[in-house]
Amino acid sequence: MSNLETQIMHKEDFSAGIDRSCRIEHDLVAEHRKRLPGAIESILEHIDDCDCFAHIGDQPIHFSTSVHEMIEKFKEVLFPGYFSKEKLDSANLKYIIGQTISQLHDVLAEQIIHVLRHDCLRYGQACAECEANGYRIALKTIQSIPELRKILSEDVRAAYEGDPAAKSHDEVIFSYPGIYAITVYRIAHILYELKVPQLPRIMSEHAHSRTGIDIHPGAAIGRRFVIDHGTGIVIGETSVIGENVRIYQNVTIGALSLPPGAGEKFKGKKRHPTIENDVIVYSGATILGGDTVIGAGSVIGGNVWLTQSVDPETKVFIEMPKLIYKYH
Amino acid sequence: MSNLETQIMHKEDFSAGIDRSCRIEHDLVAEHRKRLPGAIESILEHIDDCDCFAHIGDQPIHFSTSVHEMIEKFKEVLFPGYFSKEKLDSANLKYIIGQTISQLHDVLAEQIIHVLRHDCLRYGQACAECEANGYRIALKTIQSIPELRKILSEDVRAAYEGDPAAKSHDEVIFSYPGIYAITVYRIAHILYELKVPQLPRIMSEHAHSRTGIDIHPGAAIGRRFVIDHGTGIVIGETSVIGENVRIYQNVTIGALSLPPGAGEKFKGKKRHPTIENDVIVYSGATILGGDTVIGAGSVIGGNVWLTQSVDPETKVFIEMPKLIYKYH
Amino acid sequence: MSNLETQIMHKEDFSAGIDRSCRIEHDLVAEHRKRLPGAIESILEHIDDCDCFAHIGDQPIHFSTSVHEMIEKFKEVLFPGYFSKEKLDSANLKYIIGQTISQLHDVLAEQIIHVLRHDCLRYGQACAECEANGYRIALKTIQSIPELRKILSEDVRAAYEGDPAAKSHDEVIFSYPGIYAITVYRIAHILYELKVPQLPRIMSEHAHSRTGIDIHPGAAIGRRFVIDHGTGIVIGETSVIGENVRIYQNVTIGALSLPPGAGEKFKGKKRHPTIENDVIVYSGATILGGDTVIGAGSVIGGNVWLTQSVDPETKVFIEMPKLIYKYH
Repeated sequence: MSNLETQIMHKEDFSAGIDRSCRIEHDLVAEHRKRLPGAIESILEHIDDCDCFAHIGDQPIHFSTSVHEMIEKFKEVLFPGYFSKEKLDSANLKYIIGQTISQLHDVLAEQIIHVLRHDCLRYGQACAECEANGYRIALKTIQSIPELRKILSEDVRAAYEGDPAAKSHDEVIFSYPGIYAITVYRIAHILYELKVPQLPRIMSEHAHSRTGIDIHPGAAIGRRFVIDHGTGIVIGETSVIGENVRIYQNVTIGALSLPPGAGEKFKGKKRHPTIENDVIVYSGATILGGDTVIGAGSVIGGNVWLTQSVDPETKVFIEMPKLIYKYH
Repeated sequence: MSNLETQIMHKEDFSAGIDRSCRIEHDLVAEHRKRLPGAIESILEHIDDCDCFAHIGDQPIHFSTSVHEMIEKFKEVLFPGYFSKEKLDSANLKYIIGQTISQLHDVLAEQIIHVLRHDCLRYGQACAECEANGYRIALKTIQSIPELRKILSEDVRAAYEGDPAAKSHDEVIFSYPGIYAITVYRIAHILYELKVPQLPRIMSEHAHSRTGIDIHPGAAIGRRFVIDHGTGIVIGETSVIGENVRIYQNVTIGALSLPPGAGEKFKGKKRHPTIENDVIVYSGATILGGDTVIGAGSVIGGNVWLTQSVDPETKVFIEMPKLIYKYH
Repeated sequence: MSNLETQIMHKEDFSAGIDRSCRIEHDLVAEHRKRLPGAIESILEHIDDCDCFAHIGDQPIHFSTSVHEMIEKFKEVLFPGYFSKEKLDSANLKYIIGQTISQLHDVLAEQIIHVLRHDCLRYGQACAECEANGYRIALKTIQSIPELRKILSEDVRAAYEGDPAAKSHDEVIFSYPGIYAITVYRIAHILYELKVPQLPRIMSEHAHSRTGIDIHPGAAIGRRFVIDHGTGIVIGETSVIGENVRIYQNVTIGALSLPPGAGEKFKGKKRHPTIENDVIVYSGATILGGDTVIGAGSVIGGNVWLTQSVDPETKVFIEMPKLIYKYH
């Protein structure tokens, strides 16, 4: 057999091999695909099992993108010109911002009606006034914007004044996660106070996801509130925080631990601390318990763990753990 | 010279000045732009330097958006109706969810085939069964959905029961980052067990990025797992966590530090702790080491740092650092 | 009255009732909507109050999406083929990457000109060279890409070598948040050094938001830098970090606390520590102060809190808080 013939035979063997393995793979794929309908049927069969969660026959809630867009619209109105796509000047200002507010109002009303109706249907109540209530609450929220702008401007100034790394107020507004989280909290808190279900928490979790700052919309927080760095902050639902308070990374304002299963019993009770005016809480500090009051003007040092009240004008530090030095 | 003439001259000077500075700027811009091709050439020249990472001639992996969409589809199937865009009721349920599962299956198969093929080509192996394997694994994953729904429903119930701030199961599903991270972990873990490369870790890092909760897909975690607040949690690759375990913010279940450069040697070994059933780990606690076992029913207090085993039914707290109070 | 008549009457009553409640709701909605223009007017009236922040008449800065896209383009060029949508091979490489660099240059120049012009107009300076400066800086940044690729490849290798959970260099590049944050930092630092305002910080906050790692673009960080897990890391503006340094989750390289209101005074001064070569800082450690120097080869243990310098080759641990064990 000539050399050429051998080569040709090898080639044929080889492509026969490829053909064969192609066919095998093709058959395998076909076989797997054939079993998909069965798998789907088996999921559908159990879709409504009472021990699993399903949300069938209720209003859909599709928030993830729209809540983000709603927050962006709020920012365009609360800090006019900072987050706009067009250049704002005195000539077009009235029309652009006016139009944005009008859009914001409609999106907000729609979202609120949505969650009101969702809870109505879900818990079997009559749903006669969801629409009117939605518009009423959206209007109230829009009406609170001028006041909200003042409060947020004070927050921005307080952040700028205390931070040597801040180059300008613009930088604080454009890029500080603390300001983002406080802005979302202050909007969500208004909605929470107006008894809007679901939406405030979804908004605050959106901010949490972007910033690592977890402020429950139920918390009551005074003016000139500063969060530095932000990562890892937790502020619980029933916290009360005064004016001019400054908090650093990894601070928890939280609840004492509950006996397992006691969640239900404590719903709605004050479980989180009160922080009075002009308090600073340094990084890593943990303050717990609904009866704990940190008196005005106090300073809580890094890593302090507090479950008891502190008098006004007190500095609390930990006795630093002794350091052990070893030289190689 | 009349006043008017002077004015005109000034005007001409001024516009000449503008013209000149315009020309200068224009020339400068042109000069900078002229040097761009050289800069590009110089990047291209070194594009394949062996000491830099490039990924040329391999299958592309473009995950960032598609992994997010895949996770969203999983959520639509795992919690039917919660994250759907349309209203689900008994009439359309079968068609909408059926269609979603079918899409999910296809996306999943495509992604798995993609990473299998990527690693095959990358490490010079024959790639005869990547497609069949992709379909096989996708089918297995889809088949595990009914069981997964049960497990996740237990996780939701456990989160709700222990948290006084939770207003409803709906709120937990819609907005709790812990549930999001656990959902992604439970899916990623199935893929990890089925030996899918790259994809599980990219999924878990997506959840990490959104929630601050870093659960390695290799960890083995039992039923009714609760993460409260979530921020700053690390659970390492070879951790074993029992049933009914509850973990708070800033907890690390991690590895002991390695001598520099020892990474290679420890790959695949058990380096992370075992947490038995019914354990609670409070915020800021750190538990390290592959031989460390936290016995069933134990409670690990806030900020505890453990590198040794703990007997069952033990409460471990730190002797709180002495607090130093200073009054102004 | 026949049974049928009663039924009909009830029906009419019922639909009259629905009609009535519909009318009431409709009227309520109309009334709320009628008050919207007034609410908008009242926001507009105060839009330019001097105690609130507005950004009217200045260049708009619309970063959120475009900065993300710019970072993605940088990644496509810095790790060629890893994040590309098409398959790169030696045939198309030059054209695809060449085209991407060209686009990146244009986006970058546009963004830089944008922020330069913004600050020029904002602070009332002449804006004669913003465009030329933008192109100059964009070119310089593009020119630094070959060097940047080398540095990032060393970062990837160092991350891989020290982490037993890393399955491949690919996995590190595809999914490690530490690498993402370091990549963004190294780009932002170049722009910061070239005196670009706003943009570097917005980039670093984008990375912070995605990873929980907050590296100020002003920090100076040497080669082979590793961040493990990443969550909760803060590295301040004037930090100086040597080569071969490894940092774990929840580490702060920060400033000592300032007396309230002293922010302005310390702007630009060195307020953050120096970490020399070959140092490891374990999770939860806090190192503070502009005069604090951690000597080469030192190891800083978990939860150590340091405000003083440490000699080279020193291991610093805390005397662990005594653990208290209680058995049920």
